[in-house]
Amino acid sequence: MSASQFGSRFVITTFGESHGTALGVVIDGCPAGVNFDEGLLKKELERRRPGHHGSGQIVSGRQETDAPEVLSGVFDGKTLGTPMAIIVRNQDARSQDYSVIKNSPRAGHADDMWRNKFGHSDHRGGGRSSGRETVSRVMAGSVAQMMMKHVSAPTKVIGYASQIGPMTLTDAERAEVSKKDIDSFQARFPSSRDQEVADLLKKAQDNGESHGGVAEILIQNPPAHLGQPVFHKLKSDLAMAFLSVGATNGFELGLGFEAAEVKGTQFHQGPQDAYGGIRGGISTGESILLRVSFKPTSSILDVAKKGRHDPCIVTRAIPVLEAMTWLVLADHYLWSKTDRI
Amino acid sequence: MSASQFGSRFVITTFGESHGTALGVVIDGCPAGVNFDEGLLKKELERRRPGHHGSGQIVSGRQETDAPEVLSGVFDGKTLGTPMAIIVRNQDARSQDYSVIKNSPRAGHADDMWRNKFGHSDHRGGGRSSGRETVSRVMAGSVAQMMMKHVSAPTKVIGYASQIGPMTLTDAERAEVSKKDIDSFQARFPSSRDQEVADLLKKAQDNGESHGGVAEILIQNPPAHLGQPVFHKLKSDLAMAFLSVGATNGFELGLGFEAAEVKGTQFHQGPQDAYGGIRGGISTGESILLRVSFKPTSSILDVAKKGRHDPCIVTRAIPVLEAMTWLVLADHYLWSKTDRI
Amino acid sequence: MSASQFGSRFVITTFGESHGTALGVVIDGCPAGVNFDEGLLKKELERRRPGHHGSGQIVSGRQETDAPEVLSGVFDGKTLGTPMAIIVRNQDARSQDYSVIKNSPRAGHADDMWRNKFGHSDHRGGGRSSGRETVSRVMAGSVAQMMMKHVSAPTKVIGYASQIGPMTLTDAERAEVSKKDIDSFQARFPSSRDQEVADLLKKAQDNGESHGGVAEILIQNPPAHLGQPVFHKLKSDLAMAFLSVGATNGFELGLGFEAAEVKGTQFHQGPQDAYGGIRGGISTGESILLRVSFKPTSSILDVAKKGRHDPCIVTRAIPVLEAMTWLVLADHYLWSKTDRI
Amino acid sequence: MSASQFGSRFVITTFGESHGTALGVVIDGCPAGVNFDEGLLKKELERRRPGHHGSGQIVSGRQETDAPEVLSGVFDGKTLGTPMAIIVRNQDARSQDYSVIKNSPRAGHADDMWRNKFGHSDHRGGGRSSGRETVSRVMAGSVAQMMMKHVSAPTKVIGYASQIGPMTLTDAERAEVSKKDIDSFQARFPSSRDQEVADLLKKAQDNGESHGGVAEILIQNPPAHLGQPVFHKLKSDLAMAFLSVGATNGFELGLGFEAAEVKGTQFHQGPQDAYGGIRGGISTGESILLRVSFKPTSSILDVAKKGRHDPCIVTRAIPVLEAMTWLVLADHYLWSKTDRI
Repeated sequence: MSASQFGSRFVITTFGESHGTALGVVIDGCPAGVNFDEGLLKKELERRRPGHHGSGQIVSGRQETDAPEVLSGVFDGKTLGTPMAIIVRNQDARSQDYSVIKNSPRAGHADDMWRNKFGHSDHRGGGRSSGRETVSRVMAGSVAQMMMKHVSAPTKVIGYASQIGPMTLTDAERAEVSKKDIDSFQARFPSSRDQEVADLLKKAQDNGESHGGVAEILIQNPPAHLGQPVFHKLKSDLAMAFLSVGATNGFELGLGFEAAEVKGTQFHQGPQDAYGGIRGGISTGESILLRVSFKPTSSILDVAKKGRHDPCIVTRAIPVLEAMTWLVLADHYLWSKTDRI
Repeated sequence: MSASQFGSRFVITTFGESHGTALGVVIDGCPAGVNFDEGLLKKELERRRPGHHGSGQIVSGRQETDAPEVLSGVFDGKTLGTPMAIIVRNQDARSQDYSVIKNSPRAGHADDMWRNKFGHSDHRGGGRSSGRETVSRVMAGSVAQMMMKHVSAPTKVIGYASQIGPMTLTDAERAEVSKKDIDSFQARFPSSRDQEVADLLKKAQDNGESHGGVAEILIQNPPAHLGQPVFHKLKSDLAMAFLSVGATNGFELGLGFEAAEVKGTQFHQGPQDAYGGIRGGISTGESILLRVSFKPTSSILDVAKKGRHDPCIVTRAIPVLEAMTWLVLADHYLWSKTDRI
Repeated sequence: MSASQFGSRFVITTFGESHGTALGVVIDGCPAGVNFDEGLLKKELERRRPGHHGSGQIVSGRQETDAPEVLSGVFDGKTLGTPMAIIVRNQDARSQDYSVIKNSPRAGHADDMWRNKFGHSDHRGGGRSSGRETVSRVMAGSVAQMMMKHVSAPTKVIGYASQIGPMTLTDAERAEVSKKDIDSFQARFPSSRDQEVADLLKKAQDNGESHGGVAEILIQNPPAHLGQPVFHKLKSDLAMAFLSVGATNGFELGLGFEAAEVKGTQFHQGPQDAYGGIRGGISTGESILLRVSFKPTSSILDVAKKGRHDPCIVTRAIPVLEAMTWLVLADHYLWSKTDRI
Repeated sequence: MSASQFGSRFVITTFGESHGTALGVVIDGCPAGVNFDEGLLKKELERRRPGHHGSGQIVSGRQETDAPEVLSGVFDGKTLGTPMAIIVRNQDARSQDYSVIKNSPRAGHADDMWRNKFGHSDHRGGGRSSGRETVSRVMAGSVAQMMMKHVSAPTKVIGYASQIGPMTLTDAERAEVSKKDIDSFQARFPSSRDQEVADLLKKAQDNGESHGGVAEILIQNPPAHLGQPVFHKLKSDLAMAFLSVGATNGFELGLGFEAAEVKGTQFHQGPQDAYGGIRGGISTGESILLRVSFKPTSSILDVAKKGRHDPCIVTRAIPVLEAMTWLVLADHYLWSKTDRI
């Protein structure tokens, strides 16, 4: 297991510095015969980009076209069973902006951590600790999604913001998420308070402020029996997947911390945990709800990003968390193929 | 990577069914020359046992001596650099109690999940989905702790219950945990309300009730620079480690979900997140506070366990979470040896 | 990947020192539902033991009963899909014989290498560099064989000695191996010159002499399409498996080095390489012949073994090489389950 | 472990079809601070190319510039400790030449094996079973070599042909290899019979004939103590590395099969195996000689390659085997950093 590798069967290795030549991923373990849907790949990359939808004004200003190039593993529209390498070149490196950082690491950023750990680091824009690293995850996740469509068409992964700073989704709003076009909301906060949230973020950007938040991922109709005891329970691999994303600091499955307060007779004898469709680490086939918390972005402290910082990272993180979810599902789906003789 | 394997450098593989012949672990990757402290191994196993301290009356009744036997990897009081196998035999299997379960899986348990997934399962007491599986983790964790003592003596891992059902530790109490003997509290809830908690649990046991709760793990003086970008950030490996424990459903680092509500200027310009000593996925050397939530135990529904169920799993889970913490630290310590040429 | 681990899907981890408490293996990745054949396990262990058949007089004197104990992973006669741990206790440790070695490592043995590498070693009988380590491989291999019987009943793995010192099997004799009971030959050299070989070895033992040799493994009716490009070709994994056995120093597939001298038109336009049933790293379904060379045993230099040394290791290595072959087949069989969507 | 991945610490993942967009490798696990020597990378790629030296006339005609592009992991002339991705684009795909193959797989090639295994394959030029795949290995190997220069400057890896069809290097010639410029010999056969060999190959090319052969790799001054018992002995990982190269079918360490005929008293009491500097699977620090046999190339049967086939693959394989050797050394060097506490 190497540091930039994820998965046991559907194995990905990502690479690329924020201001290097290119970012990319190699997927080794995707079976042959999957229909390769380049449109989906591009769409997911587009969804990850800052300002991809109405939220253009409220997220970090870096603009990359992010045109993916498939280098291997696909032929005549289908996967070959060989490693698939996909890259995206960095165009808007603007490393001149970052020269100032060389000797003064950005507060709150991981720059100094990397420098101390490795003794040598790419000071331009965070290198590999930058959020730009997630381009590779989104590309890999789109391929995982293509594979899952073959084997479990009804499975859906729906991500949305459930909290942005002080604003929180109501239970009624949450109950409707699967009926809404999440991307049509400026901050992917699926509520009639859409504009309020956008205003909050705009104001934060103007004032050099930032907010934390919570993203939720709803998995509808997951295949049953995914998850490997003991250490690769579906929930542990999902937790690892989500906590590997920058700025995250919390994870919940179903009721999460709230369950600590519920009595057992109530928890287990009612409809139980309505969204916790994992038991004994294994998917039951019922819906799974996952929640991830994010710290307020630290880029407010970043002189170089003055006026261009992300006031809240949650909106942009959603396609990344969805990608990680597809990767975990694809990995465990393949793994389950050898559960029984 | 196999299902019962954990770690990339300090690699453990656990085995054993709840009512099988024995449970155990093989540790492959522990360097040669570590002083083997059999006393520590036994002490940690003892701490994991139900009723090991004052809490004897309030936890599940199964009594095993849990005498560990080291089969390999140690000679003349030191590790050899070869795989260390340690086992514990099951003595109190009482599988007759469980015969009733064969055709009626225990509600809330994972028994039916395993049966459906694997097509064949050990119906006696949950097989490998039983909490008894954690014996192997605790043994492995004690060896990880022995290794870390060599290389980072001041590092401490302190686990305690911060919430048991409706009762929650106060900030003042939390601030004192490192000065207290956690095991002297009946439910490892380090508060003057010790007896109140014990009464709550006793009452739950009498009434066939159970409670969820929260465990906290405080890492004091961790080595700096542990954690590997991108997918093996220290936080992601810790999240995976904790969520691999049964009945867990939430994880927080430092402020966790609370950070979602704090403004960036406040979060980043004050002393920041006082217990979140991980930045960019890498340990800073400062204290790290981790929180894990647990569902109320499902054994209340278990006919076979009538009157013997655990009213709250948190107390017993604490040595297990500590073990998982030591395993992650040991793994990343070894990994960091090759960060630089 | 840890040092004592083998396989990617059918993953084994072995442990145990020659003169420690026990040797064993954990198999993680064997699917549920395989009929567990304890008789086969015992038979294969028995075949590995010195003096198991007529050759009693011509191999090293250590006598262990080698009674295997299955600690986990099997219930009601079938595998559970959970890790299977199997151990054998050391009974005839006689470590007093080896006290002399402590300060004078045995010439030709690996004792000093281990001491220098690890700084601390078990000087009693070679620790883990002893041939006794292969007990674990044979146990694991027998389980792999059980699994393969489910899925590819006609597959046979036949091992025999094709050279012992100066004596070499003729092509006519080789052509008959599948019709013979290899174990009925004193040195597993399936020839009418059986007694000549036995005499040669007896004489070597009396004279403190030893011989090298060659073992051959014939795989009949292997499943087709096993082997993963690029690095896990079936031939590369077999080569690694065989060269991981002590005293080996050469490997050939089919014609091996002889093919270097054959012209392409002859090689490729005749029936090609009659026993090289691997093409592009993938099994064709045709027979596969593998050859492994062994150095003459170094125990002749070992004062402690005076009069008890093995005059040739090939005979005893055969069940070990067969076990490694089954392990590679089982691993690749499971791997091939995810070749296509 | 995925199929196109090699190594446990210095981990590489290769990708790319012969006639796809690009070939490449991601190296994950190279420590930070290694001086990146782009000249060495280019030189090694150049050495791998057909017709790179005098042998231009006697090897397969495909001409690629093979200009490597480093996409990540290097900054200011040094490695960052992050994944290094390096690619080479395919320019001379000429896939029209191969259209004929679509429905008639090339005899002796692996094309049909892949098609049967994966159900879908790239019929143009062998896809990933083509020798072109080795470009990725050579690039990775050059980085491994850069790293080893930091830590073990005197280590040298010298590859040469010791047999080409009927022509065999003499012991006297072999004894001189380290004093010669191997690349100055037309077929890397370091002998005064250089022209004879070249004539043999030219004639074979004209006549649609091919020859097998043997390559030797001499490791001078390897670091001592490399190799991990039990399954990752240095010799087993080298065997796997070499047998993963196409057309190989034999491997020898030191005396190899010849040792089968030598008596133990002679073998162990003389200077032993002069080139077998591995004991108990661990390097002694003495020279290591490795031999690899190759089948005669099958491209003689390939209509599409009429007049352009490689009459013997050994010459071109040498930089590839050297690369694999550096990769194994680098991997085990890093692994040895955690042998002792």
